[in-house]
Amino acid sequence: MKNSHYKIHFFPDEVAVDIEKGKTILDASYKGDLFINALCGGDGTCGKCKVILKSGEVDSMPTTHISKEEKEQGYVLACRTRVMGDLEVLIPEESRLDKSQILTSDYPQFPGSLAAVSLGAEQFKRNTLVRKVYLELSPPDMDDSMADYERLCQDIMVKADIPLEMLTTNFTVLKHLPSVLRNSKWKVTATLGYHGSSVEILEVQAGDVSAGNYGVAVDIGTTTVVAHLLNLTSAETVDSEATYNSQIKYGDDYIQRIIYAEQNNAMEIMQESMVEDINHLISTLVKRNNVSIHDISAVACAGNTVMTHFLLGLDPWNIRKEPYLPSASFVPPLRAEEIGIKINRNGLLYTLPGVGAYVGGDITSGVLAIRLDEAEALSLLIDIGTNGEIVLGNKDWMVCCSASAGPSFEGSGISCGMRAAKGAIETIHITKNFEVVYKTIGNVSPAGICGSGLLDCLANLVISGVVDRTGNFQKGIDTERLRKTDDGYEFILVDKNDTATKKDIVITQADIQNLIRSKAAIYSAISTLIEAMGMDIHDIEHLYLAGGFGNYLDIRSAITIGMLPDILVSKVQFVGNTSVIGAKLSLFSEDAYKIAKAIASKMTYFDLMSNNKYMEEYISANFLPHTDIEKFPSVAEELKVS
Amino acid sequence: MKNSHYKIHFFPDEVAVDIEKGKTILDASYKGDLFINALCGGDGTCGKCKVILKSGEVDSMPTTHISKEEKEQGYVLACRTRVMGDLEVLIPEESRLDKSQILTSDYPQFPGSLAAVSLGAEQFKRNTLVRKVYLELSPPDMDDSMADYERLCQDIMVKADIPLEMLTTNFTVLKHLPSVLRNSKWKVTATLGYHGSSVEILEVQAGDVSAGNYGVAVDIGTTTVVAHLLNLTSAETVDSEATYNSQIKYGDDYIQRIIYAEQNNAMEIMQESMVEDINHLISTLVKRNNVSIHDISAVACAGNTVMTHFLLGLDPWNIRKEPYLPSASFVPPLRAEEIGIKINRNGLLYTLPGVGAYVGGDITSGVLAIRLDEAEALSLLIDIGTNGEIVLGNKDWMVCCSASAGPSFEGSGISCGMRAAKGAIETIHITKNFEVVYKTIGNVSPAGICGSGLLDCLANLVISGVVDRTGNFQKGIDTERLRKTDDGYEFILVDKNDTATKKDIVITQADIQNLIRSKAAIYSAISTLIEAMGMDIHDIEHLYLAGGFGNYLDIRSAITIGMLPDILVSKVQFVGNTSVIGAKLSLFSEDAYKIAKAIASKMTYFDLMSNNKYMEEYISANFLPHTDIEKFPSVAEELKVS
Repeated sequence: MKNSHYKIHFFPDEVAVDIEKGKTILDASYKGDLFINALCGGDGTCGKCKVILKSGEVDSMPTTHISKEEKEQGYVLACRTRVMGDLEVLIPEESRLDKSQILTSDYPQFPGSLAAVSLGAEQFKRNTLVRKVYLELSPPDMDDSMADYERLCQDIMVKADIPLEMLTTNFTVLKHLPSVLRNSKWKVTATLGYHGSSVEILEVQAGDVSAGNYGVAVDIGTTTVVAHLLNLTSAETVDSEATYNSQIKYGDDYIQRIIYAEQNNAMEIMQESMVEDINHLISTLVKRNNVSIHDISAVACAGNTVMTHFLLGLDPWNIRKEPYLPSASFVPPLRAEEIGIKINRNGLLYTLPGVGAYVGGDITSGVLAIRLDEAEALSLLIDIGTNGEIVLGNKDWMVCCSASAGPSFEGSGISCGMRAAKGAIETIHITKNFEVVYKTIGNVSPAGICGSGLLDCLANLVISGVVDRTGNFQKGIDTERLRKTDDGYEFILVDKNDTATKKDIVITQADIQNLIRSKAAIYSAISTLIEAMGMDIHDIEHLYLAGGFGNYLDIRSAITIGMLPDILVSKVQFVGNTSVIGAKLSLFSEDAYKIAKAIASKMTYFDLMSNNKYMEEYISANFLPHTDIEKFPSVAEELKVS
Repeated sequence: MKNSHYKIHFFPDEVAVDIEKGKTILDASYKGDLFINALCGGDGTCGKCKVILKSGEVDSMPTTHISKEEKEQGYVLACRTRVMGDLEVLIPEESRLDKSQILTSDYPQFPGSLAAVSLGAEQFKRNTLVRKVYLELSPPDMDDSMADYERLCQDIMVKADIPLEMLTTNFTVLKHLPSVLRNSKWKVTATLGYHGSSVEILEVQAGDVSAGNYGVAVDIGTTTVVAHLLNLTSAETVDSEATYNSQIKYGDDYIQRIIYAEQNNAMEIMQESMVEDINHLISTLVKRNNVSIHDISAVACAGNTVMTHFLLGLDPWNIRKEPYLPSASFVPPLRAEEIGIKINRNGLLYTLPGVGAYVGGDITSGVLAIRLDEAEALSLLIDIGTNGEIVLGNKDWMVCCSASAGPSFEGSGISCGMRAAKGAIETIHITKNFEVVYKTIGNVSPAGICGSGLLDCLANLVISGVVDRTGNFQKGIDTERLRKTDDGYEFILVDKNDTATKKDIVITQADIQNLIRSKAAIYSAISTLIEAMGMDIHDIEHLYLAGGFGNYLDIRSAITIGMLPDILVSKVQFVGNTSVIGAKLSLFSEDAYKIAKAIASKMTYFDLMSNNKYMEEYISANFLPHTDIEKFPSVAEELKVS
């Protein structure tokens, strides 16, 4: 018996999807490549996937996330609503993921970025991981009857300065070599792939095609995947593209995804999903730039340890169980084709090495990008996402840790929170008279608040005196914006008449506590790490902020709420997507890739969870900015003045 | 429309084969795994595939190889006779290939073999190309959270003394590593495969299974394929097995096979045929010895350059065209599975390196086996087959050449010639009264003469005065054995009443000229090589005879006819199948394999064809033993005495 299928029309996208009876509206949206926010992975717990049902029959499960008022307007949770007939569905702005805000560029919009410097040719020898060498072999004759393969190897040795005993190859090359050499009149281009202690002749092509040598650097984030197309001959970035990580549908953070994969025996699905994202990015990049997929012989991926495991199809189970072990931190170069990545069929996949279960190749990449491993002065690298990874050190030593900040800076767990997408409030200012000034991404009517907006909001709430240093609303203030609901107090940031959702944008007492917990996790990680090394915050000469969120936040706000320590703003630098930068540096330079390995070996992982001090610090940090205001003299000054 | 099929019954084997109408009897015999002698590859030119048609309808093409008398007895050429109905076919003894005479043992039946010595543990460090190392990893805990793969690598580094940076692995190992480690309580066996400049972790298994480490050494001859099953843990040979090279059906010598493959676009067929032979041998060996195919992780193959090309599926076209180039002489280790060899799925295939188009890995193997490359005294290695390969040198230098001896020593082109199979005359003595004493293989009625018998025959013909030193019959001698036919004179060796074929076994004037040409090719190669190096035959301290034919011949006869130079018999050693010995040594010792590569690099190929002196020498050698009898003082003495 065949199951019935129904047609779902999504608006305003005007996308129609055929789907089986009984599937959810969320399933249908994925089928239509529409990204609906589903932070919890479709469990019905986050309440982010609200859509408006315009017409049609559904079977909707009860939820506390939809108010009576919303229900009347047709709101349902996409993940809890099963399709029972043809439907018309409107996806409201605030439920939508939007690609526009993914940080594709490796350079942040702030000037003086160190990352820009580190990409200079002066940093590393320009010996790409995969290179193409044009060779004019001397044709054989009766006095020189060396076999084809050895003739080729001899010339490669001379031209590319690679010892003979390091050279190896594959069946495909050996099979086609005689005809390629003769058809090309002994003028060929050899593609050489670095394997560690050996160099593989990946391909031999007729004529001089050495200019057509491309690579792709990929940052595999939990939320976003960013790819850069590189011209390996000129060592230039040709183009970049980004997409949401399709695994979002299986859970917002990587622990949720491991659980999903384990419970549903879905490792293959997780892998395919990621490979498809990468293939999609590569295919977009090559089409847009008129590059042949055949000319891409290398992909370098940097990601956290779990993402790397999903990509390679390696067991991630032990990552979430004591003593928290990856299957591999140093993955040797492998044939990209073997996991389904569509580049040259003999092309190689390089993986940036990680330090452990919670500090992955993206962080090694970050250290490489800013050369923290060569810094004279004590430096701190902070990459803030769902997890905040922190590296402290200089050229002599490096320690790193990872703190679970939770997804509140990505809009999850916050009543009006949203991702940094169009319509999100990204900067906010609250005056002494409790007036609210804000700016949205895309300068449209606001639909919610994203991470940087939340940071600003919290900082301004404390400076303006709306909340006290414990984060509690000051009930006595003279403004109608503070109101009491059934769930407690909330502060109205934007009136419903001015919003895209036609609902008030508010921040609640619960939201504030969530944000404080997130910022406390990061601050206490930083301070515990610094203290454990017998240092003081004043010893830090450079603080580098990396990652998508890190590039939009206001440093002063971050200090005011006590997420970052009280440090001179001039010491702080935004360094952009250092994950993709490290992957690029590796592709451009075998030396850089080797250094990445040395960095990963050299970094000591510091486990916060098994450190008693961390919990103490964390509790002390559950204040604005901190229980000990003396640790934040600039904020003490700010609060006095205001 | 479906073609008709008919049933062919072969006798005395009692094998029945179904075959399509229009196919030849030879095709049917291959289908039934019956080896009929077809030296020319089914071209109708050699006349060796005579069978007797007992009943049934055929379409037989005319041939000069079947006499009127034979025709009446039902004789047809299997390759020229098409099946037009159900048949009964008798395969006579002399048309049959028999596996009994293939030299499977690496030690010849003669004592004092150097080959036996060279296999001693004292020769090479016992570090097998693929080894299994049992590891007891320390289980991880919160203070030691190194990833699984690095934990494994660390232990391998310590236990197997392999630098970390040389270690690499494959997807399969990475995928299964976490579960194998945990299920085995961190006690595992790692299989390590030598790749040149890197070492691949081929497999990781639970528990201590390091004893189950087997390899297979293969000698791929043009005519025969020999395989030895090796226990790599104890460095012992477990068993050996041999078979005819199934490619025989496509031509007797390798040039014919290249032409066949080229004309019929049959490279894949040639490769499959060879892979099937090897798989068949391996499967026989593992069954007989109760070894799991999974425990075989390495195969080492030694063969001439053309056989190696067919095995790997590499273009052999340029081997037979000036300037005679192989696709590759040094083939890196490759995954055996990729060409279809059925061992452990991650097992490696090692190929012994060759010198050039006409001196292959079998000869490098031979030099390795007798360590000619370390010899103090000037030594000569001769491997006689369809081609005679010769190596001259010592620890300081080595030159090698290849002479096309033609297949007459394998029985082809000789009227009563046959392979060294049951019923072949292997030794022969002709008395002063022209009586003939002989011995056959298997002590049965004679069916023909094999190589060693032909050598004896020719030597005795000249000593007894039946032929003069030009090879011409002495018409005046007093014996009825010498008779004139339409084709000229012939000497009856065995009367038809005493033969298995019920036909006289004779040697004709044409046969003698063929044999002289063959022996002259070998002798002139030896003497040209020696002279080109400014040496004299007396400078040779050791003469090593290798290969199947080399192990059955009578040295005195070989000197008498002038195939070997006049050297003290005590300087000559039979060294057996040095091709398989070299492959074995390599599997037993990475060092030996490296030395094989050094040997191949060190050997200088000497091209006889472009050397004017060779033709002169060849013409001078077209005498018995030579035009210049002074070069053969012992033979001059022999002829005087006789």
